[in-house]
Amino acid sequence: MLSVIRRDISEIVSACQALDVQGGVVGTIGVEFEEPSTRTRLSTLAACAELGLHAVEIVERSRLSISKGENLADSYQVMGEIFDLFACRTTAVGMPHRISRWTSKPVLNLGDGPGEHPSQAVSAAVAALDHGLDFRDLTLGVWGDIVKARTIFSTVMTFLLLGARVRLVSMVEGEIPDRLLTAATQLGLDQRLVHLPHKSDLVGVDVMYITRLQQERRAQFTAPSHLTLDLEDIEGVRLVLHPLPRGAEVTEKLWAALRPGLLAHVRRTKRVRKRLLQGLAHGHWTAWGEGVSWTHASHPPGQCSFTSAEEIPFFAQSESKHCAACWSRLW
Amino acid sequence: MLSVIRRDISEIVSACQALDVQGGVVGTIGVEFEEPSTRTRLSTLAACAELGLHAVEIVERSRLSISKGENLADSYQVMGEIFDLFACRTTAVGMPHRISRWTSKPVLNLGDGPGEHPSQAVSAAVAALDHGLDFRDLTLGVWGDIVKARTIFSTVMTFLLLGARVRLVSMVEGEIPDRLLTAATQLGLDQRLVHLPHKSDLVGVDVMYITRLQQERRAQFTAPSHLTLDLEDIEGVRLVLHPLPRGAEVTEKLWAALRPGLLAHVRRTKRVRKRLLQGLAHGHWTAWGEGVSWTHASHPPGQCSFTSAEEIPFFAQSESKHCAACWSRLW
Amino acid sequence: MLSVIRRDISEIVSACQALDVQGGVVGTIGVEFEEPSTRTRLSTLAACAELGLHAVEIVERSRLSISKGENLADSYQVMGEIFDLFACRTTAVGMPHRISRWTSKPVLNLGDGPGEHPSQAVSAAVAALDHGLDFRDLTLGVWGDIVKARTIFSTVMTFLLLGARVRLVSMVEGEIPDRLLTAATQLGLDQRLVHLPHKSDLVGVDVMYITRLQQERRAQFTAPSHLTLDLEDIEGVRLVLHPLPRGAEVTEKLWAALRPGLLAHVRRTKRVRKRLLQGLAHGHWTAWGEGVSWTHASHPPGQCSFTSAEEIPFFAQSESKHCAACWSRLW
Repeated sequence: MLSVIRRDISEIVSACQALDVQGGVVGTIGVEFEEPSTRTRLSTLAACAELGLHAVEIVERSRLSISKGENLADSYQVMGEIFDLFACRTTAVGMPHRISRWTSKPVLNLGDGPGEHPSQAVSAAVAALDHGLDFRDLTLGVWGDIVKARTIFSTVMTFLLLGARVRLVSMVEGEIPDRLLTAATQLGLDQRLVHLPHKSDLVGVDVMYITRLQQERRAQFTAPSHLTLDLEDIEGVRLVLHPLPRGAEVTEKLWAALRPGLLAHVRRTKRVRKRLLQGLAHGHWTAWGEGVSWTHASHPPGQCSFTSAEEIPFFAQSESKHCAACWSRLW
Repeated sequence: MLSVIRRDISEIVSACQALDVQGGVVGTIGVEFEEPSTRTRLSTLAACAELGLHAVEIVERSRLSISKGENLADSYQVMGEIFDLFACRTTAVGMPHRISRWTSKPVLNLGDGPGEHPSQAVSAAVAALDHGLDFRDLTLGVWGDIVKARTIFSTVMTFLLLGARVRLVSMVEGEIPDRLLTAATQLGLDQRLVHLPHKSDLVGVDVMYITRLQQERRAQFTAPSHLTLDLEDIEGVRLVLHPLPRGAEVTEKLWAALRPGLLAHVRRTKRVRKRLLQGLAHGHWTAWGEGVSWTHASHPPGQCSFTSAEEIPFFAQSESKHCAACWSRLW
Repeated sequence: MLSVIRRDISEIVSACQALDVQGGVVGTIGVEFEEPSTRTRLSTLAACAELGLHAVEIVERSRLSISKGENLADSYQVMGEIFDLFACRTTAVGMPHRISRWTSKPVLNLGDGPGEHPSQAVSAAVAALDHGLDFRDLTLGVWGDIVKARTIFSTVMTFLLLGARVRLVSMVEGEIPDRLLTAATQLGLDQRLVHLPHKSDLVGVDVMYITRLQQERRAQFTAPSHLTLDLEDIEGVRLVLHPLPRGAEVTEKLWAALRPGLLAHVRRTKRVRKRLLQGLAHGHWTAWGEGVSWTHASHPPGQCSFTSAEEIPFFAQSESKHCAACWSRLW
């Protein structure tokens, strides 16, 4: 079953690496952002415009009929009759999943709280391909807020599924990335994932993924001042990625060196989102859907057994809770 | 004179029943929503996009120059030079009327407080045609907040003008729909409109129109718990409409049965709005304008005698106050 | 050097007077409004739509990643990879300048606090051409808040550079327009600019530019009731402009007389913005850029020496502070 998943992730990543496309999508997309966003919101809206896909922003819920007492399921069922597809960033983990069950239209998950951020992860994988790297002969080093950053979870799982080895080093001393370790174990990928204590453990990695501390998801800020990365820390690394915004995790000098590559990655991410939206609109990902997931498909799409709010599946949180087939619709 | 009105309402409803149209409108539309809205706002914006009409949202007035001291008449006069047409939902009754006098461009009324909601009413009439019903041989039953719901007022007047009989039953015991009864009397349509006390008086109607209690327009909530409709209450009804959102006026079981039809109606409403916008943009409704109104035309368009804010005509509120010819421009 | 500037301003004004254009621009534009705006925001968005340029509104910064700690320079660098051009109204003077240095894409300054409003000034100059006036044989009279209104600064400098004479009369008794007088002196244009005390000093001007008191930029309001202009005050004037909104600076009677001309000017301004955006998108203003500025070019574009936040150049504030070459990119 996992081989199916690997093949499909690989297919999507390859499709997204293909050359930029202009136009070609006719339709409308409802776009919702519950959380602040610069890169994801703006690059998605620009991607839609360049595709010819008309984006309508679903504004704050206080301005929607939710404030008149409408329940969210009713709202999304109705909106599913109005738009051809959806893209959303939510504060609640698993909310895009729930939305995808309320409407028959495809839903692009643009980040669900500390949950997932699949399009960002695919962009990272496309970056590796663009740099001529082979996943089966590649080590990804991850440095930063490895517990709270949703892009890390999605990116690590994607690289593991594609065959890479991964080294995790937390910027916050002593923090264990339980969620990542559990998910990898469930999928039988844990032999290629290691959790290490020191920054120096990153020496020799091929791709480095850095994030800032996710202050907005931590009640108490833990300053990692003595752990700031500098130029020498990325020596020999062939590709450095950082989802931005930045905090204190990199020096100004390192930032200046990374900037051109990171700005190029912004353009790449817009291109990847265009491909994902195009695939969703044209039904390609749906066609591939049954196996497209970070976990294994345990039942056919559309036959999900979760029905109540309490059962929102938290990706790979526990074997009995997640609903992998449904996740296949969250692209 | 009323025969003219009937013919024109009938023409609009027939035109709006015609097949869906794509593109064909070049121009820009200024869209303003002063009140929360899911279906109306989003379906209008999607309708514009599908027509090729560029919608620009006129955001909250605090962000407009109103906050710098500009008066609203000046603002709309200026905006009339910028956009080709307007669509607005306002909190004040009659405001779309006033806007239509400030600008020479057509204004689509998308709901003015507890006043009117013409495009929703046309959608309901189109639904009846889609179900093969003949207005002259049809009884509309209305159940819900018949006093406060603007869609009820517009829908009842439309069905009466098209030749149907109407039975009104208020969800709030003892409430008299004075405004509806007065308007129907003024138009000589009162013989086909009855106001009845019991839910059981709805037995035998062909079309049922249900609304929730409009809590946001009632200081004190009156719970109609023992009056919730269930499956048996719609037995024999050929078409059930509900403008959504729903409250406690229908059981979960009835809701489940109604959902497919109501979602189909959402698609119908988007289609109707496309036709209305197209007609407005192409000048069709203007061409028909002199007689297109829920009331009779008492003077030629453009010769309205109301000039001050105090005189905002409240639709059919009193013979001496309303300005029917102007309403003809509010489509 | 100044002759170059005069020629280029003249070129832009002539280009913007050319007939209206439809479509022809492919791309996306990021639009940001930090301050309330009716005419500028809506006419810019409508202009984009009519050009076929997809506008994406960069909403309040609290919804952007700025709220997650991202610095503005990083944000604009990233956005420069997403959009093809930018248009912005900022609260801080000089902010569009800074933005234009953070991104390689063209930036249209739509008003920077009390700083500049170039597209409005070009519209005023185009209006003079539309009325068959010759700048070298023309006197512009300015009445209103000559110290705080950014459109006055830009308009006066434009008319001076094009060869006109200018008479300034402040609505607020005793206020000296230091900034204008200094800028004109620096550019050697001061012999054609006079600052006069009385409303009657405006008799005989060819073009009259009127503004309201900019209450939002004055802690303490100074009512100019006895100085309100009336019909007789504009006798003999061939063109009256007013950027709107209006306050107490004109009587209702004068307003009624001016309205048709001012509404025509709203259409003209939309047309001018279309031409400016088209020129920016097609690189015309860049081609002309070296000399296109209200001040003289003291260094080649791209070689600006200002690097810190403290050094935001305030237009022509002092010889040593402004950075004229960079302003050339703010069109």
